Amino acid sequence: MNNFVFRNPTKLIFGKGTIARLAEEIPAGCKLMVTFGGGSVKKNGVYDQVTAALKGRDYIEFWGIEPNPKIETLRKAVEQCRRWGVDYLLAVGGGSVLDGTKLIAAAVKYNGDAWDLVRNNALIGEILPFGDVMTLPATASEMNRNAVISSIETKEKFGMKVDYPRFSILDPQTTFSLPKYQRAAGMADTFIHVMEQYMTVAGESPLMDRWSEGILQTLVEIAPSVLENENDYDSMANYMLCATTGLNGFIAMGVTEDWSTHQIGHELTAINGLTHGHTLAIVFPGLLKVLRDQKMAKILQYGERVWGIHDGTPEERAARTIDATENFFRSLGLQTRLHEVGIGEDIILEIERRFNERGVAFGEGRNVNGTIARRILEAVK
Amino acid sequence: MNNFVFRNPTKLIFGKGTIARLAEEIPAGCKLMVTFGGGSVKKNGVYDQVTAALKGRDYIEFWGIEPNPKIETLRKAVEQCRRWGVDYLLAVGGGSVLDGTKLIAAAVKYNGDAWDLVRNNALIGEILPFGDVMTLPATASEMNRNAVISSIETKEKFGMKVDYPRFSILDPQTTFSLPKYQRAAGMADTFIHVMEQYMTVAGESPLMDRWSEGILQTLVEIAPSVLENENDYDSMANYMLCATTGLNGFIAMGVTEDWSTHQIGHELTAINGLTHGHTLAIVFPGLLKVLRDQKMAKILQYGERVWGIHDGTPEERAARTIDATENFFRSLGLQTRLHEVGIGEDIILEIERRFNERGVAFGEGRNVNGTIARRILEAVK
Repeated sequence: MNNFVFRNPTKLIFGKGTIARLAEEIPAGCKLMVTFGGGSVKKNGVYDQVTAALKGRDYIEFWGIEPNPKIETLRKAVEQCRRWGVDYLLAVGGGSVLDGTKLIAAAVKYNGDAWDLVRNNALIGEILPFGDVMTLPATASEMNRNAVISSIETKEKFGMKVDYPRFSILDPQTTFSLPKYQRAAGMADTFIHVMEQYMTVAGESPLMDRWSEGILQTLVEIAPSVLENENDYDSMANYMLCATTGLNGFIAMGVTEDWSTHQIGHELTAINGLTHGHTLAIVFPGLLKVLRDQKMAKILQYGERVWGIHDGTPEERAARTIDATENFFRSLGLQTRLHEVGIGEDIILEIERRFNERGVAFGEGRNVNGTIARRILEAVK
Repeated sequence: MNNFVFRNPTKLIFGKGTIARLAEEIPAGCKLMVTFGGGSVKKNGVYDQVTAALKGRDYIEFWGIEPNPKIETLRKAVEQCRRWGVDYLLAVGGGSVLDGTKLIAAAVKYNGDAWDLVRNNALIGEILPFGDVMTLPATASEMNRNAVISSIETKEKFGMKVDYPRFSILDPQTTFSLPKYQRAAGMADTFIHVMEQYMTVAGESPLMDRWSEGILQTLVEIAPSVLENENDYDSMANYMLCATTGLNGFIAMGVTEDWSTHQIGHELTAINGLTHGHTLAIVFPGLLKVLRDQKMAKILQYGERVWGIHDGTPEERAARTIDATENFFRSLGLQTRLHEVGIGEDIILEIERRFNERGVAFGEGRNVNGTIARRILEAVK
């Protein structure tokens, strides 16, 4: 097991009717900005619950943080925060609204352009406190320091580390109106978050292995109900809990991580606009094919414990395990080949070029460079 | 799934050589008391590492917090804290030293007798900040609010809620010198902590079920090595991580808990002095026998997933699962029957009397009263 430091101070408030407790969590007398996405919270009743909970409090609203939140939008929110003297932020929506809000929280006190902070997290100084009402299970942004921010101008998308929410309120009932595609992409996102922390070096921590497999097994078990029974409280509650625990540090203690599937997926979104979780469902089976030998021990363990694949040579079992993984994503209704989503060789070569230009290499072996990224994408053309 | 609130702010610093980082975690200029047990840390090098890390800092030492920490001892530490103006505490040792230190932290600013706080946690006001160097994996006190405090005078032992450590340093190398009996009792303690959060109502959270089973499976897998390879770093690291995660709230999200095995076990320790983890290894199989029908669905799931028991009638599978559980504790070298540890009918009747006198009943069904406690103990005479 590797040495590690774990700390996650977020207060997670989970369950039916919990939005009503919002005001208890936000200090009295603060100057609050509430951030939103495109308006779906006005249709599903979340906006009404939030405004009822904040009755009598001093706050302004900022609308329009889009999926894959754009620096161009967030700069406007930063300006408004400064103008109004905002000292606390509340994100209401999905992972994109919260990710964008994290960037705002870091940028308000920064004397420069907010994009600097995305490219160099070390420039982050004072961060405004923030909490959230999370309505879309996927990113686990509600219980981690991460944000992923995009630029329209440069067609780039990068992950960054900001800070943990002070509190996160998750009422599974707020997810009842989510479109099926978002449920599918969210489950794929959670599945791959787990894989980025699990599908690396075998034998580092039997407990972390069991916990990662536990999330994967649960996702496989609940996926049909999450897709089909859109108002089933327990299915959506289980899905939300999987999403949060998939990337809040609980399964990362003492183990080596990968994250190359995300790095490649971010490029697909930045260039083509494809939904994040969907990019991962395409890239990951390709990564397993290309890095099969390097990850063989873990592929076999995963195949046995999650898919019940026990018989055959290691190569046969690995092939069946990779097929089972791709078939799972297809069972969610997601295409798993690049040609199915209109991505061709030109984008593959552009991603290779970007990786090479930046001189980066990802994965537990630090070997996923431009060439390997191209091979991974060509394996799922 | 039940509604829940999760928050655990402890910073966990885990791995080889981490005691050297101690001074970074304790604010400069504070007046520190370092608390210890009976002196084993002077033999295994931990004391030397701690004093080296605290070189140049202002601190006093308090020695002699015993297993099942006694209020009579802790009152002396509280007096010394007041006399020296102590404003930060550091516990160095096992769960008992840390539990005792939590009580000290709560009692220093309380204008009354410290035992009041044990009997009525609502009286706790200001709590001194504290951290720890944990050297005995078992209680998870390093990452929870719990303390269990005993009284010599009244032969009583009660659990209480105080606060989370600011930080906990766990270097698995510090456990290399632990006697085999303490390893065995610690593993039994961890096993039952998990069971108190798992062996209740079926179907509340498939994820929490998998994570609890993951700790149980890991303990079963590593137990032979933990007992026999006393200097094996990975075995002890895995054991430490199981102990911490067994009772830090990670497996309790949205599920119903029990805790009657602990309540009965505390009485056995209070009256007879038997080591805590050992009491649980005796009581728990008895509890499964007496409450078999109430817990049947969960017993069958546990038997199948942890012990691979698939065939037979539910009653047969339950019986084999309970036997497998008792045999696991015996494989650790622990006796599992009361007559083997010199506990007879008189103590059983005294426990029944105490439960009845206090008017208490425990367990997910609130039905483990004095009568049921007696039946549980009689099932493992």
